[in-house]
Amino acid sequence: MADEPGSFRFSRVAIIGIGLIGSSVALALRAKGFEGPIAIGDRNGDALRVAAELELGTSYHTSAAKAVAGADLVMLCVPVGAMSATGRAIAPALAEGAIVTDTGSVKESVIEALTGVLPAHARVVAGHPIAGSEQSGPRAGYGTLFERRWSILTPTEGTDPEAVDIVADMWRRFGSEIELMDPKRHDLVLAITSHLPHLIAYNIVRTAYDMESVAESEVIKFSAGGFRDFTRIAASDPTMWRDVFLNNREAVLETLGRFSEDLASLQRAIRWGEGDLLYEVFERTRAIRMGIIDAGQDTAAPDFGRPRSHTDGAPEDGAARSVNGERG
Amino acid sequence: MADEPGSFRFSRVAIIGIGLIGSSVALALRAKGFEGPIAIGDRNGDALRVAAELELGTSYHTSAAKAVAGADLVMLCVPVGAMSATGRAIAPALAEGAIVTDTGSVKESVIEALTGVLPAHARVVAGHPIAGSEQSGPRAGYGTLFERRWSILTPTEGTDPEAVDIVADMWRRFGSEIELMDPKRHDLVLAITSHLPHLIAYNIVRTAYDMESVAESEVIKFSAGGFRDFTRIAASDPTMWRDVFLNNREAVLETLGRFSEDLASLQRAIRWGEGDLLYEVFERTRAIRMGIIDAGQDTAAPDFGRPRSHTDGAPEDGAARSVNGERG
Repeated sequence: MADEPGSFRFSRVAIIGIGLIGSSVALALRAKGFEGPIAIGDRNGDALRVAAELELGTSYHTSAAKAVAGADLVMLCVPVGAMSATGRAIAPALAEGAIVTDTGSVKESVIEALTGVLPAHARVVAGHPIAGSEQSGPRAGYGTLFERRWSILTPTEGTDPEAVDIVADMWRRFGSEIELMDPKRHDLVLAITSHLPHLIAYNIVRTAYDMESVAESEVIKFSAGGFRDFTRIAASDPTMWRDVFLNNREAVLETLGRFSEDLASLQRAIRWGEGDLLYEVFERTRAIRMGIIDAGQDTAAPDFGRPRSHTDGAPEDGAARSVNGERG
Repeated sequence: MADEPGSFRFSRVAIIGIGLIGSSVALALRAKGFEGPIAIGDRNGDALRVAAELELGTSYHTSAAKAVAGADLVMLCVPVGAMSATGRAIAPALAEGAIVTDTGSVKESVIEALTGVLPAHARVVAGHPIAGSEQSGPRAGYGTLFERRWSILTPTEGTDPEAVDIVADMWRRFGSEIELMDPKRHDLVLAITSHLPHLIAYNIVRTAYDMESVAESEVIKFSAGGFRDFTRIAASDPTMWRDVFLNNREAVLETLGRFSEDLASLQRAIRWGEGDLLYEVFERTRAIRMGIIDAGQDTAAPDFGRPRSHTDGAPEDGAARSVNGERG
């Protein structure tokens, strides 16, 4: 596969969906020297206006079909649930042999959706960059988002190998490493490394929110005890995540079943005072973090290296707080 | 309560337990101008040697009793489960009217343990700074750990108000805000903001670890999809956390019951394709993060403002990875 310097192996790009990922792709293309046209499509006029203001592309379209006209690389950066409709919309306008790739978090259902609606001449390469942040929209993107991250491509039997090479080359130029995986396996691995963590994070934030015996203000004030970590990924785009769960049902339910089973055993250990079991579980989970840091996938700095200067809205100085005990 | 400049309202300190919190207290005392002796006690000789090497105190003792002799402020920074034994050990050596405070994550059981073993002349002020990191041991401390964080004190009917003032003044000098709370309420609020999040984090890491269908190397490689956030707090000190769960059983089981109930409803929504319910939950959890950022308890920077330069162990460049599909 090509990894030599030179130029991108396509000349006209269309990016459909200009959220965090779409805008990061646009910025990365420019940062890495792509000089051809970048047509941006999004049915959301506000997002398009922001994209234009930020000069993310060279043309802006509410019609996905108009955006893809003449493009030899089409990147679908829309929520997984919108892939089928987007594919149907662009199908008649696709240039002969255009590569259509995507960045969706689920692969089996996306492949099925796209191959069902796109013309046979389109070269579909399903993909998923394992990168992001909790922020969304065209202002959230940054061109270095994919650096030192893995990008997974899930070619199947009918996938054109040259098209895979061209897409892989693009991700490498963005600073990513490529992993080729079977789509079904991708969906299982991501269920445990991404989908289940998001579901759990959303759920714990919801549980805290709904505790009528603890005020929301208290949850916020004392969130540095651990809770705040979960609120980050629970601030991710709700449409995107709804679609992930609806489209990766089987693998998510499988991992969730195991999670609940494991949690029940910890619950039982707490109830019966089985300290040894708790200690043993808490001890061995440390090793995985070391592995993640060693693999360059997270920082070794304590507390994620969080800036300690996020002081603007910090607690006002002054008098001691009132005793809250009455409310308990 | 005193918040004016001047000196700390005690003259000889003993810190028992020189881990992350104990060492941070020692560093904060010095940073904020405390000039008196700091006796450090820890039954772990290695930790003591490191503390001496870092010059965290003025004397070092494997005997807690020897460490507290003559101190007018004793800070117990040991795991919650060690409070009773530590209290028993120091009881005969405590100076008349010495203030004994602690930093344990559970308050009702600690108060019970300490008041049961300490002499009547000791002035017990139970406390809990809501600050920390996933790292542990005397090298993990830093003197700014408590800045812009809340420190909770849980005085009860018999607590000496002057002693509460003196301890509160110390935390304020460290840069913390003070909240006074009923111990039982503290234990409930912290169950949801800290204890349950840690339990969930430990559990999801364990579930991933035990998935025989997904290799540990895959979990590590693709952890940037969300999983890595959980591994941070799941790398916290196992002894400390075992003790927290054993000593705050009731409140943890209550919040855990609610969490599981809520999770079951999301599970059902996924199984039956109820997208509207998922969307509604995912949408409203965003608000809490905004509140936490507005309150200065977390950074607004995407991805916790993680340094993007943690590149040392990053993926090697080079050839494409092998297809892993066969293993699925």
